[in-house]
Amino acid sequence: MRTIDAVLESIESGTVTITCGFSEALTQQHGLFHGGVVASLADVACGYAALSVMPANREVLTVEFKIHFLKVVQAGRTLTVCEGSVFDATRTRVLARMTTTMMAVDAAV
Amino acid sequence: MRTIDAVLESIESGTVTITCGFSEALTQQHGLFHGGVVASLADVACGYAALSVMPANREVLTVEFKIHFLKVVQAGRTLTVCEGSVFDATRTRVLARMTTTMMAVDAAV
Amino acid sequence: MRTIDAVLESIESGTVTITCGFSEALTQQHGLFHGGVVASLADVACGYAALSVMPANREVLTVEFKIHFLKVVQAGRTLTVCEGSVFDATRTRVLARMTTTMMAVDAAV
Amino acid sequence: MRTIDAVLESIESGTVTITCGFSEALTQQHGLFHGGVVASLADVACGYAALSVMPANREVLTVEFKIHFLKVVQAGRTLTVCEGSVFDATRTRVLARMTTTMMAVDAAV
Repeated sequence: MRTIDAVLESIESGTVTITCGFSEALTQQHGLFHGGVVASLADVACGYAALSVMPANREVLTVEFKIHFLKVVQAGRTLTVCEGSVFDATRTRVLARMTTTMMAVDAAV
Repeated sequence: MRTIDAVLESIESGTVTITCGFSEALTQQHGLFHGGVVASLADVACGYAALSVMPANREVLTVEFKIHFLKVVQAGRTLTVCEGSVFDATRTRVLARMTTTMMAVDAAV
Repeated sequence: MRTIDAVLESIESGTVTITCGFSEALTQQHGLFHGGVVASLADVACGYAALSVMPANREVLTVEFKIHFLKVVQAGRTLTVCEGSVFDATRTRVLARMTTTMMAVDAAV
Repeated sequence: MRTIDAVLESIESGTVTITCGFSEALTQQHGLFHGGVVASLADVACGYAALSVMPANREVLTVEFKIHFLKVVQAGRTLTVCEGSVFDATRTRVLARMTTTMMAVDAAV
């Protein structure tokens, strides 16, 4: 957090906000925030969010994460990111959550 | 879709609903829908959702997807699934979307 | 497994092979195996592989998976799938495993 | 790369090695490399690897990545990370690649 100058702005039960000032040291070749920095920010926020709903004597470790860089997706025009939810028969309880990368191709004649 | 008896219920621009009747042929060892069926449903829905926002002469192919089975996560009690969004400086535009699996461990003394 | 006519071919400690005969009921719009079927096969194989290294009184549940459809990636030419491993200082122990979708764009002048 | 003191050690066609010296500024609460740093390293290596197989006038952007932190998985004992490959009928061509998180649970009686 210190290395990337990020600030923990708010913690509620299950929801955390972190902000990070722009700095050239954190950019990639196009002057944007490096993906690793973006991922670190989201990872730290998710970690605190998980911690905020756990008993006091527990810590939290990241097993895995997946991150989609939407700006990159939008720049390319042939890719679309979709998010899907699978509900149970009552249509209220979420059983599964999916994120996908979809590619547009010309339709076969 | 036919093989798993799924029905396309509604398509709006960018949003699609599919339903699927329960059948023993689609279950795993605990009598729940098999993960592959759950994933297929979400994948098909995401594909139609992507298609619904594309020009008429385009098809859509799934490059990759990731799916979290929340029922499994909840059963385990030590895992938490978190979703993170990274916004730009205006806090309105989403730059990146993350999904994580977080594991609770006892805090080191 | 029965629904998609898959056969468990071999199980060794940590390695499992499953085969699946081609059938029209399992295809998508281009006559290829549907992504959900491909994912189911890999998921079942991974599950048995995990089970093969566990004590006898344990079962295994899929928390999440991510799958890359390489044929789709190759068809598109602008996407490349990369796999990365992060090793410790001895360069023998794997600390992390990454899979990515990379997109080629024209270089800015 | 500069910010995390990483060094590009070798580039061959499709394979890249990056090393990174240990520094306290890059650690998380347990004194290990922060997940974001580990992810950045793997992401940069994957990006160069993709670039190494592209024409000279192309750049590469990360669409998405997923990363598994194996040390965390191993510490927990109830989780197993599996990787699956789906081959075509000739058993030589890889059609899909999967990574999963599997959870061990007590077998139902």
